[in-house]
Amino acid sequence: MILCDIGNSFYHFYKEGKVWKEPVGGMPSLVDNERIFTVSVNADALDRLSRKYDVVDLSNELPFDTEYIGLGADRAFACYAANDGVVVDAGSAITVDIMQEGLHLGGFILPGISTFVESYAKISKRLDVGFNMSVNLDALPQNTKDAISYGAMIAIVGAIKEASRNKFIYFTGGDGKFLSRFFENRSAVDDTLIFKGMMKLIREREFVC
Amino acid sequence: MILCDIGNSFYHFYKEGKVWKEPVGGMPSLVDNERIFTVSVNADALDRLSRKYDVVDLSNELPFDTEYIGLGADRAFACYAANDGVVVDAGSAITVDIMQEGLHLGGFILPGISTFVESYAKISKRLDVGFNMSVNLDALPQNTKDAISYGAMIAIVGAIKEASRNKFIYFTGGDGKFLSRFFENRSAVDDTLIFKGMMKLIREREFVC
Repeated sequence: MILCDIGNSFYHFYKEGKVWKEPVGGMPSLVDNERIFTVSVNADALDRLSRKYDVVDLSNELPFDTEYIGLGADRAFACYAANDGVVVDAGSAITVDIMQEGLHLGGFILPGISTFVESYAKISKRLDVGFNMSVNLDALPQNTKDAISYGAMIAIVGAIKEASRNKFIYFTGGDGKFLSRFFENRSAVDDTLIFKGMMKLIREREFVC
Repeated sequence: MILCDIGNSFYHFYKEGKVWKEPVGGMPSLVDNERIFTVSVNADALDRLSRKYDVVDLSNELPFDTEYIGLGADRAFACYAANDGVVVDAGSAITVDIMQEGLHLGGFILPGISTFVESYAKISKRLDVGFNMSVNLDALPQNTKDAISYGAMIAIVGAIKEASRNKFIYFTGGDGKFLSRFFENRSAVDDTLIFKGMMKLIREREFVC
């Protein structure tokens, strides 16, 4: 059994504790005849994978308690795994979802870190100065590079802190580990959160692997 | 005497309490022989204006106490007028500067509201859904449009609140009035802050108007 989270840019695979990714532009090369369970926000990429492999798409199978209209399947599965707390998936966009004992209370979306940096560069050439990954949020910036790095990080970190209050925070996605550094306690980095949600559903619904 | 704040996109003029703006692409049509005092972050536009009118550029005349390297003259003059408190200039970028009894403690830069909205649209078509100007930060979003509107506003508002603590906040720039709605007390909207800084300098240095 292989699990696959299909995003805008990558097929994210999981098999027996191992995770890897392949661009959605190409066709992943996998051992034939192995069933692939998918969660997808990319219909085209799912369709292409399904033509070559034995795919069971779980995207619409989740019994998920929310009033949110249009929640991506990836967000829903990560929240389903977390069950309680805040789920932060940090990629080109950063989704922040609040769970309370299995109930999804709502969520919001921030631009991802790379999106912030690109947006500064587009405003003015003077702001196209790169990003200081080791910016310190405890000291006010004294130059342009620090000013945009501090601005991006205090915006992202502040928004997540405001929303999380004292809840436990699960960080996932490409920038999850970097973001987690700004949160001392009550947080964890888990790159397999979506896959854990998929496995939870597969067990509960007794899907044939 | 006319005052002019020259930005990336506009000449912002001030005369006897009246303010107006003209695109930097064109040549402003003003009454001849009137001296124009300028503050500029746009060398080309300043140069064009200087060829036709009697211009005195104040950009480098300010005695301003800061360790910040590369502070735009517009930010410096707004801070000079404020003297104490937080100066938020909200345009295509949002600059946030902290002043304490005439001393500039530092500052940071956030993407402007329109820049946020554009950056979401570039991440994914699914996030190209417009902006809810009346988003409520007290209720968690339940759909994509609210999720990005809430995300942008909680990021901007949260960052400014974090930096301002209990200081008085001066809002200026095109989105200053909109932003100020999220701050109940101890804030004011002042679209003439840079011009006030210019007038303060002109008085102190006894420039000939």
